[in-house]
Amino acid sequence: MPSADSVLLTDLYQLTMLQTYHAEQMRETAVFELFVRRLPPERNFLIAAGLEQALEYLETLCFTATELDWLTNSGRFSPSFVAMLETLRFTGTVHALPEGTIFFANEPILRVTAPLPEAQLVESRLINLIHFQTLIAAKAARGVLAAPEQLLVDFGMRRAHGAEAALLAARAAWLAGFAGTATVLAGIRFGIPLFGTMAHSLIQAHDREEDAFQHFAAAQPGNVVLLLDTYDTEAAAHKLVALAPRLQAAGIQIKGARIDSGDLAEHARKVRRILDEGGLTQVTLFGSGDLDEYRLGELLDAGAPYNGFGIGTRLDASTDAPTLDMVYKLQEYAGRPRRKRSEGKATWPGRKQAYRRTAADGVFSGDVLGLEDAPQPGEPLLVQVMENGRRIQAPEPLAIARDRVRAQLAALPPALRELQPALPYPVEVAPELRALAARLDEG
Amino acid sequence: MPSADSVLLTDLYQLTMLQTYHAEQMRETAVFELFVRRLPPERNFLIAAGLEQALEYLETLCFTATELDWLTNSGRFSPSFVAMLETLRFTGTVHALPEGTIFFANEPILRVTAPLPEAQLVESRLINLIHFQTLIAAKAARGVLAAPEQLLVDFGMRRAHGAEAALLAARAAWLAGFAGTATVLAGIRFGIPLFGTMAHSLIQAHDREEDAFQHFAAAQPGNVVLLLDTYDTEAAAHKLVALAPRLQAAGIQIKGARIDSGDLAEHARKVRRILDEGGLTQVTLFGSGDLDEYRLGELLDAGAPYNGFGIGTRLDASTDAPTLDMVYKLQEYAGRPRRKRSEGKATWPGRKQAYRRTAADGVFSGDVLGLEDAPQPGEPLLVQVMENGRRIQAPEPLAIARDRVRAQLAALPPALRELQPALPYPVEVAPELRALAARLDEG
Repeated sequence: MPSADSVLLTDLYQLTMLQTYHAEQMRETAVFELFVRRLPPERNFLIAAGLEQALEYLETLCFTATELDWLTNSGRFSPSFVAMLETLRFTGTVHALPEGTIFFANEPILRVTAPLPEAQLVESRLINLIHFQTLIAAKAARGVLAAPEQLLVDFGMRRAHGAEAALLAARAAWLAGFAGTATVLAGIRFGIPLFGTMAHSLIQAHDREEDAFQHFAAAQPGNVVLLLDTYDTEAAAHKLVALAPRLQAAGIQIKGARIDSGDLAEHARKVRRILDEGGLTQVTLFGSGDLDEYRLGELLDAGAPYNGFGIGTRLDASTDAPTLDMVYKLQEYAGRPRRKRSEGKATWPGRKQAYRRTAADGVFSGDVLGLEDAPQPGEPLLVQVMENGRRIQAPEPLAIARDRVRAQLAALPPALRELQPALPYPVEVAPELRALAARLDEG
Repeated sequence: MPSADSVLLTDLYQLTMLQTYHAEQMRETAVFELFVRRLPPERNFLIAAGLEQALEYLETLCFTATELDWLTNSGRFSPSFVAMLETLRFTGTVHALPEGTIFFANEPILRVTAPLPEAQLVESRLINLIHFQTLIAAKAARGVLAAPEQLLVDFGMRRAHGAEAALLAARAAWLAGFAGTATVLAGIRFGIPLFGTMAHSLIQAHDREEDAFQHFAAAQPGNVVLLLDTYDTEAAAHKLVALAPRLQAAGIQIKGARIDSGDLAEHARKVRRILDEGGLTQVTLFGSGDLDEYRLGELLDAGAPYNGFGIGTRLDASTDAPTLDMVYKLQEYAGRPRRKRSEGKATWPGRKQAYRRTAADGVFSGDVLGLEDAPQPGEPLLVQVMENGRRIQAPEPLAIARDRVRAQLAALPPALRELQPALPYPVEVAPELRALAARLDEG
């Protein structure tokens, strides 16, 4: 049985179209661009993410014997088509926004230039990989903007949409500025710092809450973060204060306390007071439970003394905007620009580039969507990352991309950094591009 | 590097808690139940889904040498703890709702009875697997209820949250009554019928739309569904009518036409008329583009003559309710019922069962949430599915579970079958369970 990273993780129509291209010998160069048609109303910007996974997919793309057998046995495909697939590899050129680049509607995130069948086949999985990470990176960045001084940790694995979503959400959140994740496998895969405390079940499995605290501290002396809200949050805080000297005598410091239910602002204030009066000013407070950037903003506005937050479900599913209108469209074939004119879904044709101007104070002042061969003022954002189906450079360390996000967030116009919807960032369409579209519409 | 189905796809705190249990020799029997605390306001019922993947996970759970090495090298875990993990397997008992069972808030979907470390460790991935499929099955069932006569196809792979989400969404949608999916790998894995047409790019890559239609039909004579909205939907319908006799002369029938943009109701009426007047009454109409159950309802209410729909993004991400408040909570340890009392998140303790009464006309008339050892009137819904870590029976064919969904949807009270929020289905709490909770609260 093919694995989840099989080339057959695609839409059936990619294969039926490829069979048509094969029958008609349509192998000229195609140019597809991946972009977001419209930002969700809840987002003032997006962050390109997932490039490494996309390039890995393209570099390793091939049909295995098992997959070819399935295609043959399905009865849908001709022997000569299946034989062609056996040798199919991705041999194209790719331009992309560097991982972590902020972008806006209609700006290409990725451009694929390759023989039509290759460029067509990869559509579904390219969107699948880049859509999700871009979605989560933008969501996570909003959390970072709402709580810039706090330690933010991805807690979302359990309600992420499956295994890959859990892993890639942790990666995208760290890229966007989170401090780390609770998902062990993501920490290992992507080199992301891991964080973890305890669940209510550990407390419940003990007859006495104070025993649970003590046993946990003894077993994890280097990472003692105690969960306070299983029965009575403030009573648990007092137990923590009572336990601290005994632990200290054994050389164990309590690092933090977590509150996961009830009025998180009110509990934090009360617990902070109990801890401070007990001499535990260095013990940090960590909040969790149905949090997102909106709740973080409210808690901090209310002066809740949290040092960090675990953000789970609403991050990993991006609940206020769980999808993006991300598409991958043919812009040129056999040397001729192409334009889809479907109502409400018309595309800008040709090989495009986004040019970004930056003001003297370092703040982004506006982009131009133009043609690659008609440069506009500003920095061109798309760079070539693949040639002849091979990456031009070794994968960039994720920490470098994370620095890029931090720098770009700092360069966003202030209104776009707010959680509330702002006036859209200006993205002009270059006159050359408008002229090309008009020319194509005339036929 | 461990794969995505690694046992390390879990939260770090599971491992730190296990280290505590190991240090304290806490290996008594624990009972955890998986349930949904509250239904989203947009859902009148949920459908249990993902049991097969959950049991497969439990049956094969183990730590590989690579994973043990990582744990050792992380410096977080003691050698004796890592040695214990080396031999850890899941040896417990599992009770579950049969795949495809309709359920409501607080009713157990799955109950795990096992030594505490085993039962604790599996929390994160069990929720991850069952949460997502349950979410999608409920969303898909609403589509089926909204368009019971139409062929519904999952088109959501590209904007599903990663690879596993795409595969499992296709499975859950078919379980709930969809006719099939466009995702090739899901069709292969789960034996789900595959559907596919063409994308706009195939049309755009040709200089003339009619050539694209003809080439596609020639290459796929058994499955000719033509996409009409790349440039002008009604003009394309006329081209289809003009092409039909030539194809027919070659023995090729046009099966259907797809409309993907614009006013879908208006275009369908116009295209239907053009096709009918062209003698193509047998050509079916298939709609797609940002559809969900609400839009299906509107289109059919407006009399739009569609025979089927492709439903993508809004299905695979369940956009109106992208997560469920699904949890896995300790209900008993070492023979004593346990209760979490966190504000707003208190649990019902003990080993529970849901009992369902059915009226004479076959309609579900109310459930009771009770204790397993204090039976209530009605059919007990949870059944044992695993003993000593092994499935009691071979996996049930998905088609059987699909029939179960169909039968249970038919047995739902009519108000709950509507898309609009209904008064909640009655789920009483048995007096014995209330008494147990009160006894525990008294200490």
